[in-house]
Amino acid sequence: MTDSDVSSFAPLVVLELADNTKEEAITWLLSRIRDKQQNGGAELLVEQLLVGVQDGKKCNPNVFIVGSTWQRLLNGAEDVGLFKEFNDGSMRGFTYANRENFKDFKGDGDGFLSMAECQYIIKHELDTLRAKDEAHVPGYPNAKLYPGKSVIRRLQSKRILEQVFPLHDKEELKKLSFSWYKKVKLSFQPLDDVRRYFGEGLALYFGFLEYFTFALVPMAVIGLPYYLFDWEDYDKYVLFAIFNLIWSTVFLEVWKRSSAQMAYSWGTLSRKKAFEEPRPSFHGELGLNPVTGREEPIYPNTRRQLKIYLVSLPFVLLCLYLSLYVMMIYFDMEFWAIGVYDESPNFWTSILLFIPSIIYAVVIEIMNLLYRYAAEFLTHWENHRLESTYQNHLVLKVLVFNFFNCFASLFYIAFIMQDMALLRQSLATLLITSQILNQVMEAFLPYWLQRRHNKKVHKRMRKMMGDKELPLLEQVQLETDMNTYLGTFDDYLEQFLLFGYVSLFSCVYPLAALLVVLNNITEVYSDAFKMCHVFKRPFTEPASDIGVWQLAFETMSVIAVVTNCALIGLSPQVKAYFPESDTQLILTVVAVEHILLAFKFILAFVIPDVPKHIQIRLARLEFESLEALKKRKMLEAAEISKTDK
Amino acid sequence: MTDSDVSSFAPLVVLELADNTKEEAITWLLSRIRDKQQNGGAELLVEQLLVGVQDGKKCNPNVFIVGSTWQRLLNGAEDVGLFKEFNDGSMRGFTYANRENFKDFKGDGDGFLSMAECQYIIKHELDTLRAKDEAHVPGYPNAKLYPGKSVIRRLQSKRILEQVFPLHDKEELKKLSFSWYKKVKLSFQPLDDVRRYFGEGLALYFGFLEYFTFALVPMAVIGLPYYLFDWEDYDKYVLFAIFNLIWSTVFLEVWKRSSAQMAYSWGTLSRKKAFEEPRPSFHGELGLNPVTGREEPIYPNTRRQLKIYLVSLPFVLLCLYLSLYVMMIYFDMEFWAIGVYDESPNFWTSILLFIPSIIYAVVIEIMNLLYRYAAEFLTHWENHRLESTYQNHLVLKVLVFNFFNCFASLFYIAFIMQDMALLRQSLATLLITSQILNQVMEAFLPYWLQRRHNKKVHKRMRKMMGDKELPLLEQVQLETDMNTYLGTFDDYLEQFLLFGYVSLFSCVYPLAALLVVLNNITEVYSDAFKMCHVFKRPFTEPASDIGVWQLAFETMSVIAVVTNCALIGLSPQVKAYFPESDTQLILTVVAVEHILLAFKFILAFVIPDVPKHIQIRLARLEFESLEALKKRKMLEAAEISKTDK
Repeated sequence: MTDSDVSSFAPLVVLELADNTKEEAITWLLSRIRDKQQNGGAELLVEQLLVGVQDGKKCNPNVFIVGSTWQRLLNGAEDVGLFKEFNDGSMRGFTYANRENFKDFKGDGDGFLSMAECQYIIKHELDTLRAKDEAHVPGYPNAKLYPGKSVIRRLQSKRILEQVFPLHDKEELKKLSFSWYKKVKLSFQPLDDVRRYFGEGLALYFGFLEYFTFALVPMAVIGLPYYLFDWEDYDKYVLFAIFNLIWSTVFLEVWKRSSAQMAYSWGTLSRKKAFEEPRPSFHGELGLNPVTGREEPIYPNTRRQLKIYLVSLPFVLLCLYLSLYVMMIYFDMEFWAIGVYDESPNFWTSILLFIPSIIYAVVIEIMNLLYRYAAEFLTHWENHRLESTYQNHLVLKVLVFNFFNCFASLFYIAFIMQDMALLRQSLATLLITSQILNQVMEAFLPYWLQRRHNKKVHKRMRKMMGDKELPLLEQVQLETDMNTYLGTFDDYLEQFLLFGYVSLFSCVYPLAALLVVLNNITEVYSDAFKMCHVFKRPFTEPASDIGVWQLAFETMSVIAVVTNCALIGLSPQVKAYFPESDTQLILTVVAVEHILLAFKFILAFVIPDVPKHIQIRLARLEFESLEALKKRKMLEAAEISKTDK
Repeated sequence: MTDSDVSSFAPLVVLELADNTKEEAITWLLSRIRDKQQNGGAELLVEQLLVGVQDGKKCNPNVFIVGSTWQRLLNGAEDVGLFKEFNDGSMRGFTYANRENFKDFKGDGDGFLSMAECQYIIKHELDTLRAKDEAHVPGYPNAKLYPGKSVIRRLQSKRILEQVFPLHDKEELKKLSFSWYKKVKLSFQPLDDVRRYFGEGLALYFGFLEYFTFALVPMAVIGLPYYLFDWEDYDKYVLFAIFNLIWSTVFLEVWKRSSAQMAYSWGTLSRKKAFEEPRPSFHGELGLNPVTGREEPIYPNTRRQLKIYLVSLPFVLLCLYLSLYVMMIYFDMEFWAIGVYDESPNFWTSILLFIPSIIYAVVIEIMNLLYRYAAEFLTHWENHRLESTYQNHLVLKVLVFNFFNCFASLFYIAFIMQDMALLRQSLATLLITSQILNQVMEAFLPYWLQRRHNKKVHKRMRKMMGDKELPLLEQVQLETDMNTYLGTFDDYLEQFLLFGYVSLFSCVYPLAALLVVLNNITEVYSDAFKMCHVFKRPFTEPASDIGVWQLAFETMSVIAVVTNCALIGLSPQVKAYFPESDTQLILTVVAVEHILLAFKFILAFVIPDVPKHIQIRLARLEFESLEALKKRKMLEAAEISKTDK
């Protein structure tokens, strides 16, 4: 792993400072990073990448590579609360004192930690490198510092530090990508390897994607005859709606358990959340933090609430109204197209029938995209202190709009117009168009751009450095210019909307499940490919579940119960049972729906989120640590009573 | 507190063994209790109460009093994870090493712990007194023991140990009862004193009772004019139903926060649950416990599931059917009474109108009582390993039946018969009758029995011991014969049913809230009285919330939303808005109901369960302990590097 041509240590993380950064700031930062821990430093190794070639030529000279000694990394592993496999097969929080009892720990610990873990530790150590008594960053009187403030975050928020990212491990990446998406034979994804390389957060996403796809297979199989044999009388869809209903409930309950299973095997299930640092861009007036008692920026909560309720909320409502307005235009177009077709039904006018839906689908995607930027801007402007609250507010804003934007027209067609033929056509067009658009926007376009760019960089490097072999230098240059992976947000959002299409209305268009299955199979490949070759390597993110998305999917499945019950109530077959009065029909449907909802909640409550055998193992770990503590105390007490005598 | 006439230490807890217990078992038990902790003993002080008078005369000689040294109690306080007030006003887990920094800690700690805390510690130490290598209790080959098995629990399950209970503190009890219920002036209950004497579990019950009563006052006030001005047209009840709806949601959310506030101030909010011992009566075949790895009785889960699904569930369903059958008989009686009144309407026949409801109310109470015993028997027979699962299964059984038994007739009258006049009359009779019965059964009867008994014991003691002053002896004798308080179950159950009457149907009988307020005011007094004078002192139970009852009340409030929406939909006033079709009316009501339910869930999700300022304080405590840990590690690392050099 060591590229002795450039650095004297294994390079793990790249720090890129702005190319006009003042010399004194660089010197200060490097000395702080290198300084001993006792003196408040990070005690890491850091070197400039291009020591000789400082003339530039479009090439930023302020790129630094960071590494560390094994000893330091092992100490860091304890700091970040890393879970590693113990000798008895269980996962335990690593402690340096107990290091010999961990599996695969040999000698001085060389090779014990994976590269991704080392990078995560270095990121943590850099993030928690705190200002001592510096009043500001040397050379930048505006970049104020105060004791305890994270130096790296201040540099980031002042744009002195442009980016920090971990390097890819070319060899492992090759192996991973081979077993992940280059093999042709059908098999499960190598989730453990994905986790080792990209961390738990991403592995859970791919695990979810795989699980969701497999769960859809029975539905796709059942849906196929509906399509093939043209069961268009909408009578048989009652059966399908009932199946839908059960499926969407069981689906999420089983996922929770298998996600717990995965998180347990990775050691993140019982991991406690670390103390969260403020976001880099969080700003406010200096005040006392009520928790830490330290001086730091404080932003009054009332002001944030005012922003949320007086600006963000009205803005979201306005967007929803706009989306409704666009929907009405779509209906106008739709009726116009139907009118044209009715006047002269031929091949061209029958194609015209699909045009409004396709245009609407494209417009929906564009609106989602624009709204996404607006939501990010607004949530940023709301100035949340923690990344987690920022994320929650962003997810909420985006989810509400996306849900409304994508499904409002379908709800309108289903329950106000009660036109099942139109619902089917509209659903199909929306689903197919959005799938195609997504695949293009998400994978092919970035890949194509990246490839063009890579060739350019390669040429430039050759020109600049002549024929010298500089693999590390080139690698760093290439990866510096790669796009940054912005997290699993968009990927989950896409799956959320697909889940909506399938669970809400698929009974009128049973082919939906099959389409989603096909989409997701290519999605696995394109997502895997983009992680390995289009984006910079992301820092790993320990995660024990899919977080707020579990809640989002569960909410959707509750809405699915209501929708499917209503669709069942609308079916002619069911209506035939209540020939005399609609009242009886509605009351029955409502009663059944209430029972189903109650049943769903009871089910979610009764089924334990963590499988029994894992609960037992967790309890055993806890019991053992309690016993150990008790024993230690007894020994201490015995010691004391001995010295007393 | 020391009664030097009998024992040489402050007596805290009483152990009563069966009066035919074999001498060798007694000797063994006492030696185990007295033995040092290093040797696996409990290291407590224990003495026989009646050393001289072993001849009996209806008086069990095997009564022992248990006490402890202060040193031992302080160590025990750390074992049980007791929270005490720190010097800075926060509540922290007590540690012996850090003892000087706790508030009110003086000298060797004499008086630092309250009597209830001492008793709780002693109970814990007795419960965790474990068998070493004894194969069985000496003298009882059937009472098998194995290493690690709790000795006391085995003695209890074999009926060798009849009871363990803490002694009352007569002086403090006098003070408490004065400030609690003897004062005439209106004021809040002294919950902190209640907590100090009876523990958090009971204090939370009284806190809930008080909160519930206060929360009902606005409803009672609004309900009064409905009754006084005879607004019997059932039109104005829409307003009341809407008020009901909002109230029942807000009520529970606010309670969660104030309960968190209380639990925080008592230090139980962030308390972790201790490792639970198996119930004393749990039995099974010897096997390996998967958690502790020790040999202990194992009962196969499948067998328990079979019992639950093949016996308990059918039994519960049968009881529900029976309850339905009784309800039908009630309706027959009701119609017969109405028929008689209609034939000859006079004073006597108008009284006759109330008779069926009263009889039905009494029958309901009797059925609840009988069912209660059956449910306890069944749940016991299901052989649950832990007390908490036993409690959950018992609560579920009892709640379902009680809910059905009490409210089925009201639902039937409201939604099938749609007879609001009958609903009103039935509700009033049920509520008033059950309140009266409850007060009699719960407080007056036990009190009267107790009083008679106390006098007898007093006389007997005088006769036996002559004129000697023996306050401790008499106290122990009196308290040994007192009834045992079986926990807050019945008290919460009563409040649960009252909450049901008020939140489900009070819009048709607005006086209900006032009746419940009046009932609860007397309830506070009678409950307080019975705790102080009717029952044995219970061991304190640390609690951070009202547990499963929070869920029960929340479920009721969800049902209340549905019921109130339906009642609103039935009102002539609302019906007038939809003169043409019932369909429109029903759809509107259902839509409104769904929105309300969604709103309720969102509200419950958005409102944090723990108030902000307490979250901050908890975070501060956690931050401080993290910082302390970090500092210690740094110091240790520095030590190591020093010694390395």
